Amino acid sequence: MLIERLAIIGVGLIGGSLARALRQAGACRTVVGYGRHASNLEKAVQLGVIDSFEGNVARAVADADVVVLATPLATLEELCKAMMPALKTTAVVTDVGSAKASVVTAARRTLGMHLPHFVPGHPIAGTEKTGVEASFAGLFQDHLVILTPLEETAPQATACVRAMWEATGAQVTTMAVAHHDQVLAATSHLPHMLAYALVDCLAQMQEREEIFEFAAGGFADFTRIASSDPEMWHDICFSNREDLLRALERFDRHLAGIRRAIASGDSHGLKETFARAKKARDEFDCKRRTQPPRHASE
Amino acid sequence: MLIERLAIIGVGLIGGSLARALRQAGACRTVVGYGRHASNLEKAVQLGVIDSFEGNVARAVADADVVVLATPLATLEELCKAMMPALKTTAVVTDVGSAKASVVTAARRTLGMHLPHFVPGHPIAGTEKTGVEASFAGLFQDHLVILTPLEETAPQATACVRAMWEATGAQVTTMAVAHHDQVLAATSHLPHMLAYALVDCLAQMQEREEIFEFAAGGFADFTRIASSDPEMWHDICFSNREDLLRALERFDRHLAGIRRAIASGDSHGLKETFARAKKARDEFDCKRRTQPPRHASE
Repeated sequence: MLIERLAIIGVGLIGGSLARALRQAGACRTVVGYGRHASNLEKAVQLGVIDSFEGNVARAVADADVVVLATPLATLEELCKAMMPALKTTAVVTDVGSAKASVVTAARRTLGMHLPHFVPGHPIAGTEKTGVEASFAGLFQDHLVILTPLEETAPQATACVRAMWEATGAQVTTMAVAHHDQVLAATSHLPHMLAYALVDCLAQMQEREEIFEFAAGGFADFTRIASSDPEMWHDICFSNREDLLRALERFDRHLAGIRRAIASGDSHGLKETFARAKKARDEFDCKRRTQPPRHASE
Repeated sequence: MLIERLAIIGVGLIGGSLARALRQAGACRTVVGYGRHASNLEKAVQLGVIDSFEGNVARAVADADVVVLATPLATLEELCKAMMPALKTTAVVTDVGSAKASVVTAARRTLGMHLPHFVPGHPIAGTEKTGVEASFAGLFQDHLVILTPLEETAPQATACVRAMWEATGAQVTTMAVAHHDQVLAATSHLPHMLAYALVDCLAQMQEREEIFEFAAGGFADFTRIASSDPEMWHDICFSNREDLLRALERFDRHLAGIRRAIASGDSHGLKETFARAKKARDEFDCKRRTQPPRHASE
């Protein structure tokens, strides 16, 4: 048995799907949950996602071999602090946060001697849905999980978390914390801001009803991520603030360039920009399709 | 037989799919094509999309009962001028352009006495692919087609074009020209600019390779439309310039608001914006799913 006792802190889409996948793979024996809403935890028990739950995070992690933090980023520091005294010496702790530097700061502040057993992680998977009802065992299958182990992280802790994710069918890769945050700011955090801004912009137009009525399928795809959880994304924005602001600034310059080209009638420049973007997008798509099944999706 | 002789000017994704759909529905007898590339037209004959083609637009439209202009917007004026002398008095002319005011201007300049037989149209359907090989008969099934008839347009011309689109399985609606352009600037033209700007922005980052490697599925959806035809979109930008610039300006204000909230730590404002956008997007999605099969997609 890979994990005797697993504690899932935050039994939502990600936490719930991880528990389901590990159970299905026969990779864990007992799963205990912790969360803010008893009703969600009761639902999780009913659905067979967890065996039991605790109303107190310290009790939830006691005796756990692996603890997975799957709550919004802003809650992690307090949770780490609260569970720290109850952790088994050998317990491996990991998280699933979309930004990593802030998690590492929180862990350094709170985990003390336990820091070598902490492995920051980020499964690049998800849907715009939330809650344990939306969870499913196949969520991580053929998806990427990025681990950002620290200098202090014990190799066996990283190996344990790697094995856990591999048991879900995911492909695991490692990366430096700062690098992770920079790359994800560009590929995930920035697009979410654009989708939120676009939908909010259109929703406030006078023709709102009609605009949504005549919105095309491209629009539906484009804005799907604007249905993502506001609290989670609020936390990501502040957790990865500097990288995200830089990405927004960079994007602004590009959009301003397109706007200028349209305003000034720079036909050649506009066509060149579109052609360059199309080429990059086509290459990306081609790579995605020809690579072995291994998706980064969320 | 609805249409005895149909002329498709521009046998690409849209023109080709229209010909296929009308043939499949038994709604037209003969289809003649015209285009810039003989190789594409030969392919179209081989695929059975058209019966024959002409290297001269006037010859292509001679004897046609319905002429469909399905070439990039910038080419329409010249094509109208060139085909005008060869048109049968009763021939109905329509187009498929994504912006309508510029098409109307071109038609007014060139079609003269024939203007009452011209019906501006816009099928809200398509994929990011181009060329006759990408065409298929089901492209318009359950999709919207917007017609923007003019004051001068003969009701029977509008009825003819409506019947043609309905034969493809599309649902036809009418709208004023200016209104069409304003609504489409927001729902289609603006999102395309954002996708192009985003992909171009990421492609120019140092970490380009990695950025695309770790790009998530949300990113793939979000940027699919950046694979759209650069020439077509170049033409749309200049054809719907004023409305698009206004939409870009409006979007800019919203994105700047989000950026400011992140930079200044306006936690409440940021969460409120995200929550408002999520609500609007969820409502849009809910409507889309509960409405009878009738999609606007592209």
